[in-house]
Formats: sequence, C-alpha cells, structure tokens
Amino acid sequence: MRNIKLTLEYDGTDFVGWQYQVNGRSVQAVLERALKELLQEDLQVSGAGRTDAGVHARGQVANVLINHRMDVEALRRGVNALLPEDVVVQSIEEVDEKFHARYSARQRRYSYRITTIPIAVGREFSWFVGYDLNLALMDECAAIIKGVHDFQAFCKANSNVDHYVCDVAGASWKKDGVTLQFEITANRFLYGMVRALVGTMIEVGRGYRTVEDFERILESKDRRKAGMAAPAKGLSLDQVSY
Amino acid sequence: MRNIKLTLEYDGTDFVGWQYQVNGRSVQAVLERALKELLQEDLQVSGAGRTDAGVHARGQVANVLINHRMDVEALRRGVNALLPEDVVVQSIEEVDEKFHARYSARQRRYSYRITTIPIAVGREFSWFVGYDLNLALMDECAAIIKGVHDFQAFCKANSNVDHYVCDVAGASWKKDGVTLQFEITANRFLYGMVRALVGTMIEVGRGYRTVEDFERILESKDRRKAGMAAPAKGLSLDQVSY
Repeated sequence: MRNIKLTLEYDGTDFVGWQYQVNGRSVQAVLERALKELLQEDLQVSGAGRTDAGVHARGQVANVLINHRMDVEALRRGVNALLPEDVVVQSIEEVDEKFHARYSARQRRYSYRITTIPIAVGREFSWFVGYDLNLALMDECAAIIKGVHDFQAFCKANSNVDHYVCDVAGASWKKDGVTLQFEITANRFLYGMVRALVGTMIEVGRGYRTVEDFERILESKDRRKAGMAAPAKGLSLDQVSY
Repeated sequence: MRNIKLTLEYDGTDFVGWQYQVNGRSVQAVLERALKELLQEDLQVSGAGRTDAGVHARGQVANVLINHRMDVEALRRGVNALLPEDVVVQSIEEVDEKFHARYSARQRRYSYRITTIPIAVGREFSWFVGYDLNLALMDECAAIIKGVHDFQAFCKANSNVDHYVCDVAGASWKKDGVTLQFEITANRFLYGMVRALVGTMIEVGRGYRTVEDFERILESKDRRKAGMAAPAKGLSLDQVSY
C-alpha cells in the first residue's frame, strides 16, 4: 500500500474538532469522506494533533494508506475539489510506509492570537481581550516554560496520559499592530495546555498575578491553581515537524 | 446639535452592503439601530463609501448628528456593546458641524486581495485565483491608471453620475506570501470600478490580454470591453481622508 502524507489548513469554527465524534462534523470525517469518494476505497486518516472544537490549523499533518495509483498532484487537486471550503489540503507527498502523522512527529508548533481592540474582519481567529496587557511580563512567563517541565498544572483533568512532561523548544509573545501572538513549539502537548497557559499568562499581563505566581503554578502541578482556559478560536496548529 | 464622526470596520459577508435596502441587513441600518437604542433619539447616519454586498471595510467613515451629551469614549464603548460582532466602531470624534462623511471626503483607499492557492483561514476576505499570474504585468496596468482618467470602461452601466473622471493618486500591486494585494487611492470611485479593474488586470496577469489591451480598454470608455468583475469578498474600503 502507498502511505500518503497530507498537510492541511482548516477553519475550525464549524467543526467539533479534528477527531470523529458520533454527533457533529469533524475534520477527520470530512477529509475521509472526500478521499473515499475520490479513490473509491476504504481508508482511515490519522492526524498529528487532535485539535479541539473551534481550534484552527494552518499546518495540521495527516497520513492515510491507499491502494490507488493516482499521482500526488492529481490527488491534491481532486480531494480539494471535493472538500468543503473550510478545509484545504496544502500539499501531499508519498512517504515511507513507517511514517505515522502522530507517532512520527518530533515537534508541533501552535500559535494563539489576541487582539487588544475588538475587530470585525478576522474575529473568528483571535480572542479580544479588553484590558491593558503588559506584554513584557507575559513574555517572561513564556521564557519560564521553555525547557523540560511537568505541565500537569496546565492540563485538563481526566486526560488519559502516562505523564505530563513536555520539552518546550520555544515559547514567546510578539506584537504585530493590535495583535499579540503567542507561539509555542514542543515535542508534545497535553489536553487544553496552550489555552490554559495563555489564560494564565493573560492574568499576569493584566496584573492579577505576578510572574512569580506563574512560576509557582507551574511547579504546583495543580490545575486548580492555573487561570481559565483562553477560548478555542484564538488557537491554531501551525506546523508539525518530523 | 453635535456632529459625530465614526470610523468603522466590518465584515461584509452577511450584509447586503452599506446602504439601506427594503429587504436585507445593511451596515447603515444596523449602525443606526445601535445608536438609536443607545441615545434614545432619532438620527440618520451618512457613510463615506457605499460598499456593495459582501464588500468589507477596515476604515469606513460615517457621521451622525446627535443631541445627546454623552462623551465620545462612552459613545464608542456603548455602541460597540450594542452592535453585532461583524461591525466595530474603531474610533469616534466630535467634528465641525460642516463635516459630512461623504461630501467632505478628499480621498478613499480600497484594497483587493487575491490568493494564488486555496485557503481556509481568511477565505471570506480574498479571492482564490487558480492560475499563474504575472504580477509585473498587473503592476504595469496599475501604473497606467494613475493620474486623471475617464473610467467609464470600468463603471457599471446605469450609474447615476454626471461624469466618469477620477483622479487616481496611487495604484499598485504587492505580494505578501501567497497573497497578492492591489491598493488604489482616488478622489472618487465609480460603481463597480475596483472590481472591474481587478478582473481585467487578472486577465492581463493570466496572459489573456496584454498591457496594451488594458490601456486601450481604458481609453475606449466602453464597459463591454473590460473583463469580468472580481468577486466582492476580496474588496475592502480601508481609509477615507479629509
């Protein structure tokens, strides 16, 4: 069988998330349906990151085993013609049979966008925070999470994982006009981790908590100590590296 | 009475355009309703540019005469709280009684966005053109329209205007990643003008017409010679100068 790697962009607004759900429209199901219709064979798509309802992707990666001999460019055009307009296959390549979108991934990069004034154009892709924010303090928090840490304090309860240790290769805030953007790259992410980190850093930026509070929350491994999760719509899975 | 100038952003996707219509949701009506509800007085909003259905604004300007003494910052916050999320008042200031959003305007700037690959995130704000485009040739066309010209060839029929002469202060294409953006600044714009210009320049970029053809179309003053209008969703009214 051929192993096909797909790089995907989607607008998560009208999806229940990446993963199948009994009720609701998932990206995985929509992508599988388009591929099945195009190739007329049974198949299963695996994704690198299980984005939640409302979370976007600018560089999700999936793979699928197929029998069809269609060349990759025809496959890309064909599947894009069958997909709804909120999902786009950016690129397709044929990869080694051992490649798995999720298990072969070395690093994932997420971004989270905030605007400090309300916006109309692009409002589905950022969170409006109507307070003065001290970006320097938020960036100090970002610096603290770099490296290897136990992120249980920033993981939703009932996550079915063995451990909470993540290796964060990069984490920083930057400002671009009225948009504040947080970028984080790590070997793995826990359920709800980026949104809990952003929600807590915003509390530091507002002056409700100090950078030292933030550090203590990380060390506590206690989710009840962290801030509220930031809304899904500001989050995007931007890149997966192999 | 106080004369209030409002600078507005809106996502035109779900509007029939700026102007009132008997049936359908217009930006003008939505804005008036919010202001009337806030101020509890009768009033009428005038806009600088009559954007069509589906056209966006990042810097539309309107003015309204009011009696209420509310200060402008409270007015901005109040009206934003009452507006639907696809319209935002960016700023408000009190202006001279002679100021009129439409008649006092000296220049308007529009932008038109094209992407050369299909996109999911932001697809409501740009037009996907699936052909190779020669941007240098398109920019040559843009250079031709700079200055004072009769734009009847790029104006929809039955436009109720005395003449078709516009003074174009700037017109150019630029590339930013997969996005090609056309910007044009002029003292006035005719009905459908930017979309007809973009549609025709795209035909030059594709190699269907030459730059010389484009120049002849402009000189012909004949709308039947120009290309198809580009879709509304790529167009945005970005700035009005007084």
